[in-house]
Amino acid sequence: MFRTIDPASDLAIAQSARLQPIEAIAAALNIPPEALYRYGPYKAKIPLDLATSAMAAPRGKLVLVTAISPTPAGEGKTTTSIGLGDALRRQGVNVAICLREPSLGPCFGAKGGATGGGQAQVGPMSEINLHFTGDLHAISAAHNLLAAMIDNHIYWGNTLNLDTRRLTWRRTVDLNDRALRDIVTGLGGPGNGAPRQTGYDITAASEVMAILCLAESLADLEQRLGDIVIGRDMNKRLVRARELNATGAMAALLRDALAPNLAQTLEGTPAFIHGGPFANIAQGCNSVIATKTALGLAGYVITEAGFGADLGAEKFLDIKCRKAGLAPAACVVVATVRALKMHGGVALHELASEHVEAVRAGCANLLRHAGNMRKYGLPVVVAINRFTADTQAELAAVEAACAAAGIRVVACNHWAEGGAGALELASAVRELCDTPSEFRLLYPDEMPLEEKIRTVAQQIYGATEVSFEPAAAQQLREFTSAGFAALPVCMAKTQYSFSADPTLRGAPDHFSINIREIRLAAGAQFVVAFCGEILTMPGLPRHPAAERIFLDAQGNISGLS
Amino acid sequence: MFRTIDPASDLAIAQSARLQPIEAIAAALNIPPEALYRYGPYKAKIPLDLATSAMAAPRGKLVLVTAISPTPAGEGKTTTSIGLGDALRRQGVNVAICLREPSLGPCFGAKGGATGGGQAQVGPMSEINLHFTGDLHAISAAHNLLAAMIDNHIYWGNTLNLDTRRLTWRRTVDLNDRALRDIVTGLGGPGNGAPRQTGYDITAASEVMAILCLAESLADLEQRLGDIVIGRDMNKRLVRARELNATGAMAALLRDALAPNLAQTLEGTPAFIHGGPFANIAQGCNSVIATKTALGLAGYVITEAGFGADLGAEKFLDIKCRKAGLAPAACVVVATVRALKMHGGVALHELASEHVEAVRAGCANLLRHAGNMRKYGLPVVVAINRFTADTQAELAAVEAACAAAGIRVVACNHWAEGGAGALELASAVRELCDTPSEFRLLYPDEMPLEEKIRTVAQQIYGATEVSFEPAAAQQLREFTSAGFAALPVCMAKTQYSFSADPTLRGAPDHFSINIREIRLAAGAQFVVAFCGEILTMPGLPRHPAAERIFLDAQGNISGLS
Repeated sequence: MFRTIDPASDLAIAQSARLQPIEAIAAALNIPPEALYRYGPYKAKIPLDLATSAMAAPRGKLVLVTAISPTPAGEGKTTTSIGLGDALRRQGVNVAICLREPSLGPCFGAKGGATGGGQAQVGPMSEINLHFTGDLHAISAAHNLLAAMIDNHIYWGNTLNLDTRRLTWRRTVDLNDRALRDIVTGLGGPGNGAPRQTGYDITAASEVMAILCLAESLADLEQRLGDIVIGRDMNKRLVRARELNATGAMAALLRDALAPNLAQTLEGTPAFIHGGPFANIAQGCNSVIATKTALGLAGYVITEAGFGADLGAEKFLDIKCRKAGLAPAACVVVATVRALKMHGGVALHELASEHVEAVRAGCANLLRHAGNMRKYGLPVVVAINRFTADTQAELAAVEAACAAAGIRVVACNHWAEGGAGALELASAVRELCDTPSEFRLLYPDEMPLEEKIRTVAQQIYGATEVSFEPAAAQQLREFTSAGFAALPVCMAKTQYSFSADPTLRGAPDHFSINIREIRLAAGAQFVVAFCGEILTMPGLPRHPAAERIFLDAQGNISGLS
Repeated sequence: MFRTIDPASDLAIAQSARLQPIEAIAAALNIPPEALYRYGPYKAKIPLDLATSAMAAPRGKLVLVTAISPTPAGEGKTTTSIGLGDALRRQGVNVAICLREPSLGPCFGAKGGATGGGQAQVGPMSEINLHFTGDLHAISAAHNLLAAMIDNHIYWGNTLNLDTRRLTWRRTVDLNDRALRDIVTGLGGPGNGAPRQTGYDITAASEVMAILCLAESLADLEQRLGDIVIGRDMNKRLVRARELNATGAMAALLRDALAPNLAQTLEGTPAFIHGGPFANIAQGCNSVIATKTALGLAGYVITEAGFGADLGAEKFLDIKCRKAGLAPAACVVVATVRALKMHGGVALHELASEHVEAVRAGCANLLRHAGNMRKYGLPVVVAINRFTADTQAELAAVEAACAAAGIRVVACNHWAEGGAGALELASAVRELCDTPSEFRLLYPDEMPLEEKIRTVAQQIYGATEVSFEPAAAQQLREFTSAGFAALPVCMAKTQYSFSADPTLRGAPDHFSINIREIRLAAGAQFVVAFCGEILTMPGLPRHPAAERIFLDAQGNISGLS
């Protein structure tokens, strides 16, 4: 049986699964039980001293799972990462999976939970989706403490001479709450401060999240927190968080959050689930500490990056791997026949019927992503995440298109079968990992910022032209002269298209990218280039998932899948 | 040695303490290790099913620790609760302590942590002060999810016809952030909603916190969450949270937070630390579930209530005990010679010198509080929490004043000596508990709301007159006719005086209490009467404690004491 869409199934499968005690999962990685910092029977943090030892002796092969441009049809990066990990474990390989941790916002919004699906899930499902080990709450608290200390500094006399019109540090909450995007604070008279305009972003968009996921030690974390630029003073000087004396307290709030979390797949494969930054305004992948700890403890490490490969994989490679000195051994590009049909022009309600021509046309999106991964020197395999309605002719069309480009394709059925459905993919990945790696970054540190942006837009997106609004050009000059020229660029673009126009599916040509704004993430150590409007605080849909979440008298939660 | 004030000491003592594994602490309460939901080696939640069994068979004697009206000199309710618990344990008594859990706001503001002091502390100190088991974060998330769903409902067409000018549900954050007291949300155009004025309270002031601390089961929690009144519709009808379909998701977010937390004193006495509502706009004591679980597992249960006895104890008795059917066996009123001097008119910087007359005058505050506790039929003992500078003549003055009123006084030295310094207090408490209890509530449910307010103001505060602003009188009529007449009243008054004027120390006479506003907490099931302006969002001081919190390379945190 291939996948049939039944929203009750993920929950039913998760609830009927027998998870192993987390001590047993840790034992597979040679972590002694007394070293674990447990959160109940099925979750634990790996203490930082143990993580640091593991990080010092990497031995694993790193496999990146990325995808085509997302569509409403769904692709399945997380399920494929889980299925691949379970398949490798079935083949006797010592493997760990590294995933991002879910945000509460999407859980209560349109998306639901983020723990995979079908037989390819991580657990305990409701605990991972809600609160987990508290990392996102700690990030919100640290972020908002800095905000409170900025306003408090102004209230008590503003000796730093902060320009309240040029403060860029906002506040954050781990919910979808559009009413908080743009607010005025400090109303009600002098006792409450002075009115100023600011707003909230969702926690995944916080620079503190990006920092936590790039820091390699407590000292590195504290240094980066201090480096955060919160805005400008009346002389337009960039002001850092350490000038507010906020860094120690922020680091204290984040001390436990920095330690990686261990959970498991339903088949018992170790899963590190740690950190979850946005993949447009931030790097979009799990923490460096979790990835490096896994590489010290397992022979194969499977990790995913957010959105399509143009956003998530590009940032994983050019930001995370660059900064952390990581070199992936292979790359899996996930696609579904359904999504390829949409890239080929078929509407969502038409996906149940066969459309071979559309599949063929949609493969242009897949092939550009796969080709991009080869530009980094990565061996690539395409994984087709199968659905019930896929026809043989449609699958053959994908295979033919990839064969013509010299790319191997494997159809997988992990959603229905768990690791047993991804054994062929696992074998393919192991073969790729045994070929010598030629991983290279897309651009060198010393390339000017403007040129880095052009390189990504042209080499990865396929843009014919790249233009800069005058304000963006000015910001680039300022950040360059302020000493930030060697930072990588973090492109904030819609995930739905290679272009900046979300309606252009497939592999559009002859489009231009216009950079309208540049922001500095001095603590995270990248420069964000905005190609259009990017929402950093989602809204809830007309009928949010929260309305369908229920608790029974035994405390079982439904509605999170 | 008696207490000397050295801010480094609490931290040094806490860091040098050897905590026992939480399994050993649980074993003293006959909780098997496999039943615990652990958070690292020293913290655990008692799962709700186990808590429910314990609640069904109460066997312990409940001892309330309250205090004189607070002054900047400090009283020490928490340290006395801990010292008394440790002393009882030294006497071979099976005892548990029930405390409130700290809020992050005061930790980073003026107050520092809330885990006791000297040799009378609970641990692990920095973990309890920061995040603990995540309960406050869960409460913030549930509170703010409801807020987001209200604004989302309006955004998508407002079918409930909510009057956006009459929405009383605000947002919450567990920080001191005065700039958020009064804000305008929904700016930036139609995509962000419509502008409206609202604000943030600190999490301890959230009705969700009050509800969590009064609910006795998941079903009770969900019922109360649904009962929350979020404001009015255009016909002035009170609108409930359940009409937003928010209740299931809120309960799911709070599922784990409802389970009580177990920690320990530095001497190894079990300490339930769960819930922490404000003691002016809410009931000011730890959760009913924790207290009742402790009563099922231990022979003596020591608990504290916030601020002075006029606020904390009155609410503990008339709200928590009334609703939960609890009957305390005895009451300890804590005072310090230093604080009595301040109540007698001595300034803070003069406290080091002997002022026998001032101590004698300040005893008026102590005697009114102790006398009030007797009105509830409670046997009372006064505990003098000793400081180095206390003189024999000053202590004798307290003893003489209490003796004249027929009240026993015990001087304690638990701050310096731990349980060994409170053995006499422990013996006195056991004697009181062995006398037959005559506990009675101050007023019956069926007394009209206005009369309940008058009763508390006159019987407990000593007010000669009670007046109602026209708006308050109108609100009382409305809430009465809407069916809320049988609820208890929760008085929101300054903690610094029996009167509504915080500068009137001691035991003022001939003052009137003016009720300016009535608010309904329909989920928590009480009616809040405001006697003056009450801040529900504190601000940070000029030099917040956050500036002095540091993390060393090993992850040790300083500055929280």
